[in-house]
Amino acid sequence: MFLKNCWYAAALDREVGDGLLARTICNEPMLMFRKADGSVVAIEDRCCHRSLPLSLGKRVGDTVQCGYHGLQFDAKGECIKVPGQNSVPPGAKVQSWPAVERHGYVWVWLGEETPDEAKIPDMHWNCAPGWAPMTDVLHVKAHHRLVTDNLLDLTHETYIHLQTIGNRAVVETPIKTKRDPNGVLVTRWMLGCEPPPMWKPLRPFVGAVDRWQLIQFTPPANVVIDVGMADAGTGAPEGDRSKGVQGRVINAVTPETETTCWYFWGFPRDFKIDDAQLTEKLRAQIVHTFNEDKAALEAQQAAIDRNPAAPTIDINADAGILQSWRLVETMLERQEPGLGAAAKPFLREI
Amino acid sequence: MFLKNCWYAAALDREVGDGLLARTICNEPMLMFRKADGSVVAIEDRCCHRSLPLSLGKRVGDTVQCGYHGLQFDAKGECIKVPGQNSVPPGAKVQSWPAVERHGYVWVWLGEETPDEAKIPDMHWNCAPGWAPMTDVLHVKAHHRLVTDNLLDLTHETYIHLQTIGNRAVVETPIKTKRDPNGVLVTRWMLGCEPPPMWKPLRPFVGAVDRWQLIQFTPPANVVIDVGMADAGTGAPEGDRSKGVQGRVINAVTPETETTCWYFWGFPRDFKIDDAQLTEKLRAQIVHTFNEDKAALEAQQAAIDRNPAAPTIDINADAGILQSWRLVETMLERQEPGLGAAAKPFLREI
Amino acid sequence: MFLKNCWYAAALDREVGDGLLARTICNEPMLMFRKADGSVVAIEDRCCHRSLPLSLGKRVGDTVQCGYHGLQFDAKGECIKVPGQNSVPPGAKVQSWPAVERHGYVWVWLGEETPDEAKIPDMHWNCAPGWAPMTDVLHVKAHHRLVTDNLLDLTHETYIHLQTIGNRAVVETPIKTKRDPNGVLVTRWMLGCEPPPMWKPLRPFVGAVDRWQLIQFTPPANVVIDVGMADAGTGAPEGDRSKGVQGRVINAVTPETETTCWYFWGFPRDFKIDDAQLTEKLRAQIVHTFNEDKAALEAQQAAIDRNPAAPTIDINADAGILQSWRLVETMLERQEPGLGAAAKPFLREI
Repeated sequence: MFLKNCWYAAALDREVGDGLLARTICNEPMLMFRKADGSVVAIEDRCCHRSLPLSLGKRVGDTVQCGYHGLQFDAKGECIKVPGQNSVPPGAKVQSWPAVERHGYVWVWLGEETPDEAKIPDMHWNCAPGWAPMTDVLHVKAHHRLVTDNLLDLTHETYIHLQTIGNRAVVETPIKTKRDPNGVLVTRWMLGCEPPPMWKPLRPFVGAVDRWQLIQFTPPANVVIDVGMADAGTGAPEGDRSKGVQGRVINAVTPETETTCWYFWGFPRDFKIDDAQLTEKLRAQIVHTFNEDKAALEAQQAAIDRNPAAPTIDINADAGILQSWRLVETMLERQEPGLGAAAKPFLREI
Repeated sequence: MFLKNCWYAAALDREVGDGLLARTICNEPMLMFRKADGSVVAIEDRCCHRSLPLSLGKRVGDTVQCGYHGLQFDAKGECIKVPGQNSVPPGAKVQSWPAVERHGYVWVWLGEETPDEAKIPDMHWNCAPGWAPMTDVLHVKAHHRLVTDNLLDLTHETYIHLQTIGNRAVVETPIKTKRDPNGVLVTRWMLGCEPPPMWKPLRPFVGAVDRWQLIQFTPPANVVIDVGMADAGTGAPEGDRSKGVQGRVINAVTPETETTCWYFWGFPRDFKIDDAQLTEKLRAQIVHTFNEDKAALEAQQAAIDRNPAAPTIDINADAGILQSWRLVETMLERQEPGLGAAAKPFLREI
Repeated sequence: MFLKNCWYAAALDREVGDGLLARTICNEPMLMFRKADGSVVAIEDRCCHRSLPLSLGKRVGDTVQCGYHGLQFDAKGECIKVPGQNSVPPGAKVQSWPAVERHGYVWVWLGEETPDEAKIPDMHWNCAPGWAPMTDVLHVKAHHRLVTDNLLDLTHETYIHLQTIGNRAVVETPIKTKRDPNGVLVTRWMLGCEPPPMWKPLRPFVGAVDRWQLIQFTPPANVVIDVGMADAGTGAPEGDRSKGVQGRVINAVTPETETTCWYFWGFPRDFKIDDAQLTEKLRAQIVHTFNEDKAALEAQQAAIDRNPAAPTIDINADAGILQSWRLVETMLERQEPGLGAAAKPFLREI
């Protein structure tokens, strides 16, 4: 069961070019393409005649022509032409979904309620002036919430990511967790710690640093992390980041199915933004880091699939995760009263 | 659910040689081999002792010896020897099915009724004097009826097969459909059209052609298509094909399982029958064409598997398909009263 | 359903070295490692926090540290440390199983009853002075009882293993079967027969041999076969093996899942025990032989999966198999009264 009346990232903007992009989003086979005016269309990737994926057909102007018998569908999913006959049969249409391009991603709305673009999570750093953009998407064979759990408890950096962003300070420093209007905010300030390998060369730090991770979770599965570090004691916790460097770890995690997901990420930074060599070096390190996560997440999902009822415990570091679960569960229950509880076996009692 | 009291093509004649041929037909694991007298035998490919496929054993005269403990089975499936003991236990036998070689294929009968060889569909062109033979078999991961649907609505040639047999005329020319004693007959005459790429070099056509597709469907899943073209206006529709070329597209489609099938095909022609080079050139083009179908059919099946209840519509070009469905459904209902309706969810209301 | 209060071979002793060995035993994901004192530990391969396999973590002294968030577990499966907090939450533990090293294998006990090391089957020849050791493990995609069935009816040697250990005498010589305190004993004496290919060069036999196969089955799935041959008529049946050669075929078959297993084998011999070249030559022939079995067993399992209800018959050579089934079924019924019968559909009526 997925939250429906919300926006899901469905593609990187650059993935939707001249051709047809097929992707499954929340179990829906979806076809995305760009109209002549540049806007993005998302319709069902299944011909309503004989079920061939429309993505095997071709674009004809602002329509898609099925590759089997030539039926043509417009941007609303309406069949506008059936070859060999003058009229289009009633009911000849496929689903369509509102699609909006924003912050480097294409967002789609799957619910029945009127879509509200104001609800697209704020990830403007991906495209903002003064920030060097870096985005990509990763396919992960794990429930999308396992990915957000991963992001809401960063103590795993100390164990999985020691080569790049992990240091002892992460696991040793407690978090603060609170609900806020956007969802859940988890903060960790690591004062006077050693900068981790990936960050160390980014600035001539004079010694220890004050490092921060300010994690904003927004349902259904968006996480923006304000990350950075400054020379220790130069006022970063009070708001003066002038002696430091910062970035945003942008994460929009979208279910493909119940147990697989598309992990759209970004890592914009506001320093040395024209240093293309640095960008590539950072990209390599971040891809390495996320692939470490992917390996763990997929092993975790496989273990859960094997025995979904196996008992588990929570620890202090899970405080943000538990808040995010409670929030999503409440929304699911509101969406489908009585059925929302069906999500609980996955979530366990919290 | 499969129609039972009918013949299914189970092998090309040349596939049953000196060895043992294992093939699943209508969910039945089947072993075929040739006796000393040349006749073909079809028995269950599973030893009744410990279930090893008999095809892992070997032929001993006109019997098969199991490769595990040496039990021997004759052409009727009767166990005639158990090594290490003098008598054969009661019930030691495996299933056997009537098998007949005809028109280049081996046909088997799966039902309880007495098999009637007169019911083998007429595909004599495959082996007839004056016709150049060409047969083969393709495995398709799609319901066998999706293949016959493909053959009963050839408008797809315009979209899938433009490189070989497709032209605009196919989709633009309406069909005539009628029930006949053998099943369903669908005819399309395309007068004064451009010959498609594969056909164009087959004869020095003077210009436009009159092209025909006379499609005979016979249950369970046999389709013979009389195809050809002649110089436009030289009397082909009235029966004078002397200014043209013709062939037969022979199709015997046999379920392997509910969602996979064996597609036995032939393309005999009655011109330049000794031109081996032409035969090979045509074979390459036809294999290319059928592989285009296979790709579409398997994508179609995957889409149906994903959401079997997704709504679909019919169009004018489906008239022959709908007739074939009605015919098969009636036969299924006669075979298993009440249960025949179980086939309907696939067929939808027609 | 598996027999629980018994020992299962879970690893070769040499497989448990400095690292972490992950293996599924009777559907339980198991992690094995060696403590500083050399003893072997078997605990659940799943962190009780977020389900990551502990085998993706690392050893820290005599504990395992989870690779995700660093929780540490001792040899009893107790969580002894949760990073970032002072206390360990109640219930923070994973399963552990008694593990004992014996006869070249690591044995684990899965039941609730007190484990009794005296119940480890006698396979001492694997490590005994005067015997050349040879052990290995094979993964087989078949129910573990199909493997023991294979070993309890060796007439298959005549059909599957003619290149190595099979000869006509095996299938032609009847067995004697009896229950004994350890389980089931099946004996076959082949007097005056031709030595099979693998055995022929092992000794300058003067002509025909007296060959023996004394098969001891011990539940759950252990089979030790006393095998050998001596010059015909020199008294082997009466106990004088001085004119012959002998070995033991050791088999401990352990379920991985209901339809896959780990096949731990050994072939110790008491002649030319320092001839390493002979050892390697024999190893190659035995691996070849067991791979022939594996191919048949996996084909058999696939056929059973395809149609579990297909009727089968038994033959005289199955006497030992049927006794082993009756024994195991009685034990299953004792273990889970009423449910034991659930095993019957596999076993059939005996």
